Amino acid sequence: MTGFSNPLRRLWAEGRCAANAWLACPSILSAEALVSAGWDSVTVDLQHGTADYAALLTLLPVIERSGSAALVRVPWLDEASIMRALDTGALGIIAPMIETPADAQRLVAACLYAPAGARSFGPVRARFAWGDGYAASANREILPIAMIETRAAMENLDDIAATPGLAGLYVGPADLSLAQGFSPGFDRQEPEMLAMIERVRHACKANRIAACIHCGDPAYAVHMAAAGFNLTTIGSDARFVEAGAKAAVGRFRSEARSR
Amino acid sequence: MTGFSNPLRRLWAEGRCAANAWLACPSILSAEALVSAGWDSVTVDLQHGTADYAALLTLLPVIERSGSAALVRVPWLDEASIMRALDTGALGIIAPMIETPADAQRLVAACLYAPAGARSFGPVRARFAWGDGYAASANREILPIAMIETRAAMENLDDIAATPGLAGLYVGPADLSLAQGFSPGFDRQEPEMLAMIERVRHACKANRIAACIHCGDPAYAVHMAAAGFNLTTIGSDARFVEAGAKAAVGRFRSEARSR
Amino acid sequence: MTGFSNPLRRLWAEGRCAANAWLACPSILSAEALVSAGWDSVTVDLQHGTADYAALLTLLPVIERSGSAALVRVPWLDEASIMRALDTGALGIIAPMIETPADAQRLVAACLYAPAGARSFGPVRARFAWGDGYAASANREILPIAMIETRAAMENLDDIAATPGLAGLYVGPADLSLAQGFSPGFDRQEPEMLAMIERVRHACKANRIAACIHCGDPAYAVHMAAAGFNLTTIGSDARFVEAGAKAAVGRFRSEARSR
Amino acid sequence: MTGFSNPLRRLWAEGRCAANAWLACPSILSAEALVSAGWDSVTVDLQHGTADYAALLTLLPVIERSGSAALVRVPWLDEASIMRALDTGALGIIAPMIETPADAQRLVAACLYAPAGARSFGPVRARFAWGDGYAASANREILPIAMIETRAAMENLDDIAATPGLAGLYVGPADLSLAQGFSPGFDRQEPEMLAMIERVRHACKANRIAACIHCGDPAYAVHMAAAGFNLTTIGSDARFVEAGAKAAVGRFRSEARSR
Amino acid sequence: MTGFSNPLRRLWAEGRCAANAWLACPSILSAEALVSAGWDSVTVDLQHGTADYAALLTLLPVIERSGSAALVRVPWLDEASIMRALDTGALGIIAPMIETPADAQRLVAACLYAPAGARSFGPVRARFAWGDGYAASANREILPIAMIETRAAMENLDDIAATPGLAGLYVGPADLSLAQGFSPGFDRQEPEMLAMIERVRHACKANRIAACIHCGDPAYAVHMAAAGFNLTTIGSDARFVEAGAKAAVGRFRSEARSR
Amino acid sequence: MTGFSNPLRRLWAEGRCAANAWLACPSILSAEALVSAGWDSVTVDLQHGTADYAALLTLLPVIERSGSAALVRVPWLDEASIMRALDTGALGIIAPMIETPADAQRLVAACLYAPAGARSFGPVRARFAWGDGYAASANREILPIAMIETRAAMENLDDIAATPGLAGLYVGPADLSLAQGFSPGFDRQEPEMLAMIERVRHACKANRIAACIHCGDPAYAVHMAAAGFNLTTIGSDARFVEAGAKAAVGRFRSEARSR
Repeated sequence: MTGFSNPLRRLWAEGRCAANAWLACPSILSAEALVSAGWDSVTVDLQHGTADYAALLTLLPVIERSGSAALVRVPWLDEASIMRALDTGALGIIAPMIETPADAQRLVAACLYAPAGARSFGPVRARFAWGDGYAASANREILPIAMIETRAAMENLDDIAATPGLAGLYVGPADLSLAQGFSPGFDRQEPEMLAMIERVRHACKANRIAACIHCGDPAYAVHMAAAGFNLTTIGSDARFVEAGAKAAVGRFRSEARSR
Repeated sequence: MTGFSNPLRRLWAEGRCAANAWLACPSILSAEALVSAGWDSVTVDLQHGTADYAALLTLLPVIERSGSAALVRVPWLDEASIMRALDTGALGIIAPMIETPADAQRLVAACLYAPAGARSFGPVRARFAWGDGYAASANREILPIAMIETRAAMENLDDIAATPGLAGLYVGPADLSLAQGFSPGFDRQEPEMLAMIERVRHACKANRIAACIHCGDPAYAVHMAAAGFNLTTIGSDARFVEAGAKAAVGRFRSEARSR
Repeated sequence: MTGFSNPLRRLWAEGRCAANAWLACPSILSAEALVSAGWDSVTVDLQHGTADYAALLTLLPVIERSGSAALVRVPWLDEASIMRALDTGALGIIAPMIETPADAQRLVAACLYAPAGARSFGPVRARFAWGDGYAASANREILPIAMIETRAAMENLDDIAATPGLAGLYVGPADLSLAQGFSPGFDRQEPEMLAMIERVRHACKANRIAACIHCGDPAYAVHMAAAGFNLTTIGSDARFVEAGAKAAVGRFRSEARSR
Repeated sequence: MTGFSNPLRRLWAEGRCAANAWLACPSILSAEALVSAGWDSVTVDLQHGTADYAALLTLLPVIERSGSAALVRVPWLDEASIMRALDTGALGIIAPMIETPADAQRLVAACLYAPAGARSFGPVRARFAWGDGYAASANREILPIAMIETRAAMENLDDIAATPGLAGLYVGPADLSLAQGFSPGFDRQEPEMLAMIERVRHACKANRIAACIHCGDPAYAVHMAAAGFNLTTIGSDARFVEAGAKAAVGRFRSEARSR
Repeated sequence: MTGFSNPLRRLWAEGRCAANAWLACPSILSAEALVSAGWDSVTVDLQHGTADYAALLTLLPVIERSGSAALVRVPWLDEASIMRALDTGALGIIAPMIETPADAQRLVAACLYAPAGARSFGPVRARFAWGDGYAASANREILPIAMIETRAAMENLDDIAATPGLAGLYVGPADLSLAQGFSPGFDRQEPEMLAMIERVRHACKANRIAACIHCGDPAYAVHMAAAGFNLTTIGSDARFVEAGAKAAVGRFRSEARSR
Repeated sequence: MTGFSNPLRRLWAEGRCAANAWLACPSILSAEALVSAGWDSVTVDLQHGTADYAALLTLLPVIERSGSAALVRVPWLDEASIMRALDTGALGIIAPMIETPADAQRLVAACLYAPAGARSFGPVRARFAWGDGYAASANREILPIAMIETRAAMENLDDIAATPGLAGLYVGPADLSLAQGFSPGFDRQEPEMLAMIERVRHACKANRIAACIHCGDPAYAVHMAAAGFNLTTIGSDARFVEAGAKAAVGRFRSEARSR
């Protein structure tokens, strides 16, 4: 076997669940602070995060140097965004708002070179990052992952999960809860939501692809890992800043008051 | 009284201690997350932070919109850096490595327009941020603050503190502990360090200027506030990310292991 | 009523016409200079302006701090662009080249959260800008506005105007005059053009949505306001620079010559 | 004569007065709008403008393409800033706050290669902009210009003006008026200020160097040109935006009210 | 004939073959180094290069100043990308992955103003770069060029080539070789590949449009020019760096070893 | 011995000569192309290169990931620039225009923490790059290197070389040849220049510090390595682009002509 190897695939092959970081702030320093914690993978969020392509180009070397696998959530199911994220060196693509098998097939095709898919050739930074064997290994190692976060997606779940070449499904709890009439948020406890999450996990297992889910609290992520999920995202850089700052100010104000 | 008014001056006039945030990551999103906690002031660190002038220009509107007073720590005692930070709209300057009364006088001169000082006129963004009365109010409202963090500074402490126009002293515990032969860090408990910190506070009080100190933990900041400090910095955006990420991964790994 | 409130909606409820600025230059300083004039709204032009997403993120805090409502003209009818502009904090979207009711429905859907629409949840900066009530208020306050600037759009005008959830129509006189065989430009006086402009205004009134139009000269904008338009754009930052510079050089050269 | 030729030097040799633009906004579009007016020279302001080195690198090609001579006002009398502005392709340096002949000598030395001066060799972009003859022509063509804007500068005026290699003096009316106890601003009419301006012009003439002055209104610039100044700056990009926007909103509001 | 004139069209009218540079690195300095060689045209690659729109805006003045015609390869067949590249001043568009006559018609329509096409009007920088006659000349001078690089494109070759308004076809050898089951790369020598390349050239000749091809080595480009191609791309900035660095290190290591 | 280790120090301890790359273009892609050649060290040039601090922050992860030691040439002997380059993770500083032992002592002091020096503590990215032992190892591993490139420097050569803590001298042939009245350039063959180069090497050997020199051609670098130099810089990214492009266009034009 020549070329590069995706650490997430190896980790999944060993039956382990990946701890995935969520990177929304395109700052080298906050990225270094984030990746220093030792995640299995780090996802740069180009959809609801504030990085764009130019920032991604500077963030991937930081992530790769830490030893984590770098994934990218693209803003939309869009061939150009997927192509550019992969050319920059991303090892997997999380595509939002996948609703039909046709969507999933477009996602897979955008991640694979011809004749298997329709990704245009030109691995501009990926070749430097992953070596001269990149072209030969890419179709085997790159992970196309479809977000499940709408009513339509749930209705088409089994057909989406069966898409040849798809590497995983990723539960987006905020949109999925909105679609059910709940207020949006992570770490859902409603029976309806838990049932849908379990259905996604089961569809993944049935199709031998990775079950992934976005979590807020580590405890919820541990629970999902125990339930059989293969990748759990925990928090995000922006949320760590917000929570850390709120806690610091809160303790300062309350302790100062109590003296 | 015309023109603008510096909220830190008002707060100090009321005898309160400011909770100051430390901003090291030049990302709009992490800045929004940081300022959302409701600090009295937010300091953009151009010395050991990763923002530069171009980033500062984008961060000040975010800080101002939150209602906090925006301060800037400049990279060095340097007229150009101080001038550009003030022109951008900063309400105070924290200058590192002040060691002599002459240093402190240069700092003050760089913050004041002629004839009181030698700041060159051209408040490019400050005029838009603080209104047409900016020129008339600036010498009264802008805060020049000198960092005390070397052996020489401690030796010259009283003369530095007596510099006309100086608004405060700021203890830099990391460099100060290095200078004493300790390993660098915040929240010092060594008797020698506590004595020096107390000396700085006392010199401020004697000269009716603000005593400021860099802290890591909120509890230490509360302690310093109780001891009479007028501004305490607590943590930083980069440290909130690092601590949040480490805690999340740590809990995930340990709980996953224990199941 | 909880959450945030869009000042343009309040202004329109009072029957007033908004003075809208057009921002094409992604510079903090020119933005400050522009917004300092006191506009009711400021539109960042991502289509024919030179800002991109990364610049938008820095410009919105400047606009918001001035008290004006921030709108964004997206480059094209594209879910990803609309989503990212709204997530950044924009209070309305002006979408170019809307030609059919289906186009208008896509625009509206991209601006509204499920179940009313298909906007993906993740108000990354909008939540910090507009508070924790953002999610609950967004569908009520966000303004989707369709540009009318092609022959097809004029043919489908009444059906477009009747699209549920649409907040307004915006006349693009340059493209519309090109489509009619005129040379492109603003402030049209041709009877055919005036008739089309009046038809747009009437369709808005009939559907109780806002009639908006791009103008060059303030006098033309005043005329359109008197005719019943609800928002008039006047000039742009780039045009103010061009006109100011041309006038200055012209006066210098001609007066120098005449002496 | 080989190498490149500075158009300002040619214009001055013909006894003409240059119309100089002031560029404070680091946006390609506003720069294009500014230079389109046909200035003799365009000065990028790195002191009270918002461009930095990275922006300068993108602005010089725009200015050069317009045929205007590109000058740079550096933030401070600082060898590194001067060197980097010249390496990028600037044809002249305006240095603020020159107060003594020693200051003026440092400025000249920083602009000239050894053995005449102490500029370090490495014309990174200048060689591409001005050709292979750049090294041989630079000491002849580059213009070091000293700002006169403090009391000390006025006291040392004749000695400063006599500095070998200096190409001109530049009156900074805002700081100079502050130094005299006036409120800061351009286009001074006070007899004391007019006398100082005339003294600067006379010192330039006596030393056969260029007399330059910062103006607000074209009429004032015409007056200064008639009085013998060799370069007059008129307004700035930021002021054109501010004035244009204020006028537009003002006319819209007043005409709308009067109907 | 008024307005601007595209130098590539003139060169082709003279029967010459253009030497085209490929720009993948969004750095002003590497761009200056690249364009200094005197190319007929320079293409900024927004697909597999690392420039984005914001970088393009800074690169076009550099290319134009060198006298070369500036082309842009857009990331995908996408109206918004094409519009923004043209508005910035590009004189031609190379669109990847064109597979059908309908694709080619979309490309042409996106490059032409109404009524000939559907390009939205607003030549933000193009008007400054090419003058007030831009609007009247653009439909005549702008070059829409379709990449031929898939099996489907070869099957539809004659129909694509016959698209009214299309200015040329551009062979993408890397994707085309992948599509044929070869490993990807330039300068193909396989008989099947040479036959396809000849088919593209012939289709261009038959339709009196320009035949263009991406090459690695100058010798291959010379061969293609002799065979009748009208534009040959040779190497790229990134490849020049890579090759130059590899050669330098290689010679240093081998000569050092051999001593 | 804990903490990190500088690969250049290890290489020098083995008596080998380092092949050093010169990085002048702040583009991630050209940086990847440059470092892919396998240099022992890569120097980011902040003096005559076009990178600034913000770019440096993005380039260091790319260099480190390649396994090369990252050095920075600062714009001037300036504490702030040196501090920020080191805080970002640079393993050595090349300071231009060192002329006296006092200059060299300032350089060393700026590179070392107290009490040995005066570097302010706050290794913002360096701690993430080099681990928690960074503070304890930095004074031992960081390399302060003084450029010798003026007449004064040659006169003070032995005293400069003897500065405690200095890690090496670096011959700047372009400025040094200018200072001798030659036209500037690398790879000098004049007997006077060769004698000066040999004097620098000898002074290094006498003081057991590294002798470094800037070269153009690999052959010259090999020669200098054989003569006892410890680090030779070969070419630069910008020169590789320029040379590669010139060669490509030259071959295309001459071969096309000869057919």
